[in-house]
Amino acid sequence: MRLLENLKWRYATKKFDPSKNISDKDLERLKEAIQLSVSSYGLQLYKVLVIENKKIRKLLKKASWNQSQITDASHLFIFCNYTKRSERHIDDYIQATAKIQGAPLDKLSVYGDFIKESLSQKTDSEWTSWSEKQTYLALSNLLMACAELKIDACPMEGFESDKYNEILELKEKGLNAAVIAPVGFRSEEDYTQFREKVRKSKELLFQSL
Amino acid sequence: MRLLENLKWRYATKKFDPSKNISDKDLERLKEAIQLSVSSYGLQLYKVLVIENKKIRKLLKKASWNQSQITDASHLFIFCNYTKRSERHIDDYIQATAKIQGAPLDKLSVYGDFIKESLSQKTDSEWTSWSEKQTYLALSNLLMACAELKIDACPMEGFESDKYNEILELKEKGLNAAVIAPVGFRSEEDYTQFREKVRKSKELLFQSL
Repeated sequence: MRLLENLKWRYATKKFDPSKNISDKDLERLKEAIQLSVSSYGLQLYKVLVIENKKIRKLLKKASWNQSQITDASHLFIFCNYTKRSERHIDDYIQATAKIQGAPLDKLSVYGDFIKESLSQKTDSEWTSWSEKQTYLALSNLLMACAELKIDACPMEGFESDKYNEILELKEKGLNAAVIAPVGFRSEEDYTQFREKVRKSKELLFQSL
Repeated sequence: MRLLENLKWRYATKKFDPSKNISDKDLERLKEAIQLSVSSYGLQLYKVLVIENKKIRKLLKKASWNQSQITDASHLFIFCNYTKRSERHIDDYIQATAKIQGAPLDKLSVYGDFIKESLSQKTDSEWTSWSEKQTYLALSNLLMACAELKIDACPMEGFESDKYNEILELKEKGLNAAVIAPVGFRSEEDYTQFREKVRKSKELLFQSL
């Protein structure tokens, strides 16, 4: 099974080779995998920054406990959730659905109202948690696409999101850096690539009923 | 690219064919994909219930706005995050790492202490949000494995987690039902399978810097 092979191949890359870059063609494929991510109600309430600029990445590295992946990788993906609810997000989705599926707008609007009503019941902290979760699904698609293309990646929570938000002026746009992933190619010197994967046994992880 | 084809093939299945079941062999493959999921620090702080039992699923259906997927699908996967922090989780992980990688335990213990210290800084609501997020990465692996095996699935947040926790006696085990996915085979009558996928354009979703 291809997916299992890819999952076994990948690892959280600690040291990238700064001389190697992802091709434009592969970058588009990675974006397409993210674009196809599952999301709650299909809303995709996030924006993904793809950063090549070295100056910006130097600043971000300081806000990431100086981890070398931030600047050494070919590209840095930053998954940003929308921090505020806006009916516009749902209206845009309903409009897009009507256009793509050729469905009648009045029937879809009823569904839009249902989504708005459901989301309005979330407290602020529930909203934050929920919208951040969606970015993890998108991150996962990126990781899986990288593995198929034999591109290395390092999913990271170890960064200061407040500082990221400041450096990238995300707050003004109603966005928050939720999770990141430098992607590129492993350095031959990265000794962690030779480590055996550690996973819980199926007996510990699953329960059948 | 295989992954992109699979992502385009899949859809959130609204109506399953109750007469079709996943083979034992494929079920093991789905579990292996979940087992290989990325997780923060590699801790995999969740348990995955795989429910075939029809009686239990009838009860769960009532706690899921009576959605037919819960009982009609071949199996119901329930991703449960651990609700309380326990140093045991980290100690177990460190022990497993020492065993699998043959690494010296004293050096690994320093890393274990670092993880404990990091996690202790999270507030209770941060912990909840963080541990739930990890289940979304595992859910994503299940969805991707299903798509490769041409097994249908429906990722769902639309269920009453409190009632799930009660029915499945999860609270006593320090667990919480975070997200679920019925998996099986689509009914020919499921009209949603013919709908065009709605996704944001790359221009809307990405920003390059």
